[in-house]
Amino acid sequence: MKTLKVALLGCGNVGSQVARILIDDAADLTARTGARLELAGIAVRNPEAPRDVELPRELFTTDAEALVESADIVIELMGGLEPARTLILHAIGHGASVVTGNKALLAADGAALYEKADAAGVRLAYEAAVAGAIPILGPIRDSLSGDRITRVLGIVNGTTNYILDAMDTTGAQFADALAEAQRLGYAEADPTADVEGHDAAAKGAILASLAFHTTFEMANVSCEGITGVTAEDIAAAKDAGFVIKLLAIAEKLEADGTEGVSVRVHPTLLPRTHPLAAVHGAFNAVFVEAENAGELMFYGQGAGGTPTASAVMGDVVTVARRLALGGHMGVEAASGHFPALPKELVTTSYSIGLDVADAPGVLSAVAQVFADHGVSIETMRQKSHSDAANASAELRFVTHRAPEAALAATVEAIKGLDVINSVTSVLRVEGV
Amino acid sequence: MKTLKVALLGCGNVGSQVARILIDDAADLTARTGARLELAGIAVRNPEAPRDVELPRELFTTDAEALVESADIVIELMGGLEPARTLILHAIGHGASVVTGNKALLAADGAALYEKADAAGVRLAYEAAVAGAIPILGPIRDSLSGDRITRVLGIVNGTTNYILDAMDTTGAQFADALAEAQRLGYAEADPTADVEGHDAAAKGAILASLAFHTTFEMANVSCEGITGVTAEDIAAAKDAGFVIKLLAIAEKLEADGTEGVSVRVHPTLLPRTHPLAAVHGAFNAVFVEAENAGELMFYGQGAGGTPTASAVMGDVVTVARRLALGGHMGVEAASGHFPALPKELVTTSYSIGLDVADAPGVLSAVAQVFADHGVSIETMRQKSHSDAANASAELRFVTHRAPEAALAATVEAIKGLDVINSVTSVLRVEGV
Repeated sequence: MKTLKVALLGCGNVGSQVARILIDDAADLTARTGARLELAGIAVRNPEAPRDVELPRELFTTDAEALVESADIVIELMGGLEPARTLILHAIGHGASVVTGNKALLAADGAALYEKADAAGVRLAYEAAVAGAIPILGPIRDSLSGDRITRVLGIVNGTTNYILDAMDTTGAQFADALAEAQRLGYAEADPTADVEGHDAAAKGAILASLAFHTTFEMANVSCEGITGVTAEDIAAAKDAGFVIKLLAIAEKLEADGTEGVSVRVHPTLLPRTHPLAAVHGAFNAVFVEAENAGELMFYGQGAGGTPTASAVMGDVVTVARRLALGGHMGVEAASGHFPALPKELVTTSYSIGLDVADAPGVLSAVAQVFADHGVSIETMRQKSHSDAANASAELRFVTHRAPEAALAATVEAIKGLDVINSVTSVLRVEGV
Repeated sequence: MKTLKVALLGCGNVGSQVARILIDDAADLTARTGARLELAGIAVRNPEAPRDVELPRELFTTDAEALVESADIVIELMGGLEPARTLILHAIGHGASVVTGNKALLAADGAALYEKADAAGVRLAYEAAVAGAIPILGPIRDSLSGDRITRVLGIVNGTTNYILDAMDTTGAQFADALAEAQRLGYAEADPTADVEGHDAAAKGAILASLAFHTTFEMANVSCEGITGVTAEDIAAAKDAGFVIKLLAIAEKLEADGTEGVSVRVHPTLLPRTHPLAAVHGAFNAVFVEAENAGELMFYGQGAGGTPTASAVMGDVVTVARRLALGGHMGVEAASGHFPALPKELVTTSYSIGLDVADAPGVLSAVAQVFADHGVSIETMRQKSHSDAANASAELRFVTHRAPEAALAATVEAIKGLDVINSVTSVLRVEGV
């Protein structure tokens, strides 16, 4: 029986669980792969640092380069761009297959890495990079390879889903829900990457690249976080039968005669009957629309050391099986190259909240602006403020689908109306 | 570029869509696989029969055997045990890989077919056999191959989910919901295989075999359909925060010192907050519990020609890619052999409905029976009947988890009590 040497780079909360599984479940892994998987070493900056899991001291090394050179499979769980990129290229150069969970690196430089792996005849696998434990990249690459995906909607950031779900359940404002999430360990001390949508944007770019067999750069993702979502937005959405989720939306579309791909991340109203609406707490889910398969959803834990380690090990076993069986590894490089479409060309629908003077003629003035921009209104709800001294009212519109540019222009024009005190909320709506 | 000859056996609602995709999407399929896929022919009993899709007459043949002999990939969509089994063995004998959606054949004889395919170095793929368009077998085989699955709960029959969902929404009795489902085409004229749970049982056996790397025969599935579920059961479940679903439950467990596998199909109460509770209409979903990944769910269309064709084509492309790249195909034969455990050894919890005399001492008599069998009660709800002439009441118990044998014995003993008019309902509860 073949022995495959496995090098582990990084031993944080995911890496330490991967090491544990490689050691504790060795017999099972051999049965699954047809090869013996030998953990050859773990490269870390400080071998003496405390770990989540007790591991034999002699496995640790600070010489990542030498460890990589001896390996058949390299598992990169260091995160960040460097030295991860250099070590992955080093591994590919030495004929090793690579398993990584490094979404930042893949979003920044995935296409170049896939091409190098393909040219070298080795595998570059990265299921753990998107939505943690949820098998999503494999199903898109394999199970849906005979279909055409048209759209992907993902709840791919657990922190923001936890915060929005708490706001929906308790009526809390964003700042309070964030503080509670930080207290419970669902949000980091510096929550920027999560709450501003940057983490979701990286995952959206990876999903789009794979779903549409193209190369989509993270810089082209249009991204808006959840810091502007208020308790009032959530309450108004609830009233109207919606829930607010931070979605990464990847679409293939034709606009102005160009076939292209759009990826955007923003808070989104979804009908409460939509399967994504039932995704609570820090869970993740990816909703896929395909020409033949129709609607699919993949649900599970999007983060955490042990769940993410499951995804890493799935890749390790799949790569090891292929090494045991022989033949070319078969990385799929992008087969099409679709341009990134600016968000202005995408169609969506808006939920618009207005604080208006409570006087006759207001609604008709506002409705005229919608009509002038070719945007039609699906529903309107009016709520007069109980404070009688202040003769104002709140209007909430949900539009039909229209180009983003027309919707944005409508909002700008409404702001210029005399009868408007302020535009209190602009959110996008999907799934209707 | 390599050309791969594809033989299609059967041209019903799935087969005709597969033929359409092979012809219409040929350029895309070539880009995905690195090989040309040529539809060499379609074997049917009657080439003149009308089809869902217009296809070139010259593709049709009645000589399935000769067609199989010329093919690199054989797609078997005839259904039934024979001649499907003989033709699949013929294909394997001629070195062709096989893609099938034939759950009846796989549940009856899968282990022997996988072994033959493995020995011949060809692939036997069958994603379409369970849960239609939902990628579930691939994720279990590949993405979760480095983890240990402990339990699978599946809504794998769209007809019964449609009926139960309609009963839940409208309050209808089973017979009326079935008639409506038949009128709308969600249930067949003879609905036995669906409503008695036989279809779900076949899928449960396939899921268990794959999830636990074993061979599980359909004959060992303990199976109960939904014909006994009443509108009153559904209303009482709703009152208590539950929904009733027909689940196929596959579990690996240790009982009486034996590690084994249990598969059972029965109507099941699930909390309305459970992800499976949000699966409406004819949709399917498979909920997987794994040691490291935690809870995962896969959701989508479980039937229909076009969705199922998507799953078939995913297998075709995956097989074709591997043929284009070379090397052994790598069928995974069962690596463990776990005995089928009788359902008496499984632990579950019961929801029990009783029609009782509305008199003092009844509850204590019933509670004593639970205690005598070591079964503890989680909740009890009492409803006095409004009809005053008839001094009876309804009691609904939900138990804690206990061995199935103890629960069944408890029910038998309760039936013997004088104060009991009848046991109106016995349903199992999961997900609590």
